[in-house]
Amino acid sequence: MKIRPLILSLCVLAAAAGCDQHDPDEVWQDAIVLRDTALQDSAAYDIVESLTTEVGPRSAGSAGDAAAVRWAINKLTTLGFENVRGELVEVPHWNRGSLTVRIKEPFAQSLVATSLGGSPGTSEEGIEASVLRVESLAELRDKKQDEVAGQIVYIDHVMQRAKGGDGYSDASRIRSCGHVVAAERGAVATIIRSAGTSTHRFAHTGSMLKNSVPANIPGVAISNADADMLTRQVQSGGPVTIHLRSTARDMPKVMSANVIGEVPGTGDNADEIVLLGAHLDSWDLGTGAIDDGAGVAIVTAAAKLILDRDERLRRTIRVVLYANEEFGLSGGDQYAIDHEDEIAKHVVGLEADFGAGSVWRISSRVDEDSLDIVENLYGLLEPLGIELGNNESESGADLSPLRKAGMPILGLTQDGTHYFDYHHTADDTLDKIDRDDINQNVAAYATAAYVAANIEQDFGRLPVDTEPSSTCAAEDD
Amino acid sequence: MKIRPLILSLCVLAAAAGCDQHDPDEVWQDAIVLRDTALQDSAAYDIVESLTTEVGPRSAGSAGDAAAVRWAINKLTTLGFENVRGELVEVPHWNRGSLTVRIKEPFAQSLVATSLGGSPGTSEEGIEASVLRVESLAELRDKKQDEVAGQIVYIDHVMQRAKGGDGYSDASRIRSCGHVVAAERGAVATIIRSAGTSTHRFAHTGSMLKNSVPANIPGVAISNADADMLTRQVQSGGPVTIHLRSTARDMPKVMSANVIGEVPGTGDNADEIVLLGAHLDSWDLGTGAIDDGAGVAIVTAAAKLILDRDERLRRTIRVVLYANEEFGLSGGDQYAIDHEDEIAKHVVGLEADFGAGSVWRISSRVDEDSLDIVENLYGLLEPLGIELGNNESESGADLSPLRKAGMPILGLTQDGTHYFDYHHTADDTLDKIDRDDINQNVAAYATAAYVAANIEQDFGRLPVDTEPSSTCAAEDD
Repeated sequence: MKIRPLILSLCVLAAAAGCDQHDPDEVWQDAIVLRDTALQDSAAYDIVESLTTEVGPRSAGSAGDAAAVRWAINKLTTLGFENVRGELVEVPHWNRGSLTVRIKEPFAQSLVATSLGGSPGTSEEGIEASVLRVESLAELRDKKQDEVAGQIVYIDHVMQRAKGGDGYSDASRIRSCGHVVAAERGAVATIIRSAGTSTHRFAHTGSMLKNSVPANIPGVAISNADADMLTRQVQSGGPVTIHLRSTARDMPKVMSANVIGEVPGTGDNADEIVLLGAHLDSWDLGTGAIDDGAGVAIVTAAAKLILDRDERLRRTIRVVLYANEEFGLSGGDQYAIDHEDEIAKHVVGLEADFGAGSVWRISSRVDEDSLDIVENLYGLLEPLGIELGNNESESGADLSPLRKAGMPILGLTQDGTHYFDYHHTADDTLDKIDRDDINQNVAAYATAAYVAANIEQDFGRLPVDTEPSSTCAAEDD
Repeated sequence: MKIRPLILSLCVLAAAAGCDQHDPDEVWQDAIVLRDTALQDSAAYDIVESLTTEVGPRSAGSAGDAAAVRWAINKLTTLGFENVRGELVEVPHWNRGSLTVRIKEPFAQSLVATSLGGSPGTSEEGIEASVLRVESLAELRDKKQDEVAGQIVYIDHVMQRAKGGDGYSDASRIRSCGHVVAAERGAVATIIRSAGTSTHRFAHTGSMLKNSVPANIPGVAISNADADMLTRQVQSGGPVTIHLRSTARDMPKVMSANVIGEVPGTGDNADEIVLLGAHLDSWDLGTGAIDDGAGVAIVTAAAKLILDRDERLRRTIRVVLYANEEFGLSGGDQYAIDHEDEIAKHVVGLEADFGAGSVWRISSRVDEDSLDIVENLYGLLEPLGIELGNNESESGADLSPLRKAGMPILGLTQDGTHYFDYHHTADDTLDKIDRDDINQNVAAYATAAYVAANIEQDFGRLPVDTEPSSTCAAEDD
């Protein structure tokens, strides 16, 4: 373990009696105790067990969403957090209804499929059309109108498995924009091979971008096994015809909430915030155990460990359980609006939204002058099997509005090797969470949050990022 | 490899020119060539790929069942088998319709569930009742009428994983009889934890015994993950209420067929039959790749390898692809009736109905005087990683009527460690089959069938078994 002393506080220089708990050496030593305590604590598992058992699926605007907000307020209150509250967030409400996707010829078979978030439905009779198979967005963009028009476009891209989840970028791009590119060329629907790595027969849902025109065509994902079979039928030579019927539809918007609880700081820096974020909503197919019940549990349990120390913090640790990350980032955007006046007081943010695999890397996006803190933190985290990454951490989606507004980021990267086996499927259930792994996460988050909340130095500010959001245009591929 | 010479034929004693290919040494040497050829042959995988792609689900009486019969007749004909035919079998036809199972209290959640084969449906409004959880049939049998009546019985038995599939006996007993024992005590429905070992969110279907009264109550299975969650809700203390709605129903019986093809013997023993069996039907949730597309592929590819040798066989090898094994053994029973006059001519039977895992043991049920053949066969199979078992092989279900009538059995036991992860689920798809493993199966079946069809000696006869079928009575547990 490598701990370089930081700038020594006056307190240490004076070696004075009556110094408070913010002695820098003490902070780092206390963080070690906290880290080791976390490894033996079952709070995180208990929290995600409670959420998946007592609430389960909780997609934006659903009854489960409302139940999750009640659950979270009750849970944070019961655990003893202060300033527990729900901050209202208007969320879109999409209902997937029912879906059937059936190959009519050459060989009749039903496919395991799921509508993509935001997809419109079909008429009562459904859509029946021939299938045009492509392997990428680029291949589809190269097609002319008369090659595509009137057909169902099948995008057969196989997502690659990787510890860092690298394959998700290409795969989710197809999920987000496949229907837009296909609709521009006159397609009547889009079927994608799931943006996921499951070797079991689950279709992975996830959102389609809705802010592009024309694109009012249905989009569905099929399981990898069904994609293999559809591809075999396509490759058998003759025309392939599919019938697709969906009652998916948009519903009126609904009020949900970002649920917040705090471990308050004391003294002059109490208005400064160390933000621990995760999202409370989930997709509707599974019980949202790894996405993002695990994140909710990790940040809550980490903050709870600090709360239980019953000692004053220099800064406030704020747990934010965001509304509707999955279907348009309503909670993350609304938080940035609601807290615009205090964004500059957010000294650093940490987000947990990559499942329940163990943390294997600490990276950051902080002022270069503050990298010594990250390196020292790394010294504390190394015994947990954590490597030191770079200073280009992206944060998760929920923190991105604050990051773009200048908030520094600490990134605790989880092992995502198996994350996309379960992500956005019915198979996202509690049994996929390993107790030791989730505790290791809590240890890492608690250590980092505790240090960030107590050391004298902060992480500086990031340059404001005014880059517009990605669209479905070719230049953004 | 240990090959003990068998009784020497006159042909060898005479060392005569003009002797046919039934020279016993040649038979065993040829079997080795056949075995090694099989390991390099892709026919089995091609067959199961074709069946799962061009037919897919094929439960008794469904459109897929009829398509499977057409497929099989066409496939056996195309491959060059002789006497290819369908022998009519009347099969029951049950339709699962739709099913919803939802916990109403204490915590509302939908369960991933599947109706068990033969289950009746509910009224339009469904059934809503409190849940009584038990862990075994014995625990349920100990309950009094007033402890059970009016409730939904939840049987929470966890099936154990084992190479030999040992856990399936207890688990399938609960699936077969849970509803009978529950109905006798006045229950309104039965929910079982799936008779399966999947750690993914699949419910395992399978048949309920229908020949017991009263038992006209619905039976459903839930996935292991959902069973875990339901158990947590039960253990949280308060009453648990479930709403269950099903449109499952019996349909009029339908004609299907046992599909048969032969590699004919020549000469005096040509009327003797070495039977290679598998079942053509599957449950409706998956595409029936491992249950029992793999078996169809293994026995067909093994016989095809022998067919391709283009040399005369002493006996006839008969491939029988049975109708409706899953929902009442219609095909196996009908075959025994149709072929009653020639049962004694069935010198031995081999059945492949335990997935696509590699064969790890050869066992038998033959006359004790014929055990030397089994031991010599073991000598040929040992290089495939196969052990020698005992002489108490049970055969699979389809051969049981012939076995009970005296037909000897050779049992090539497959590794079932993962079989019950997929068995009777939507996840039973082609990607679960390993090419090397299925080829090893073909090698073992081809070797055994070739030897059985060509050696002079046979396997004797078994004593006729008049034991009646098991019922749902306690003494049969």
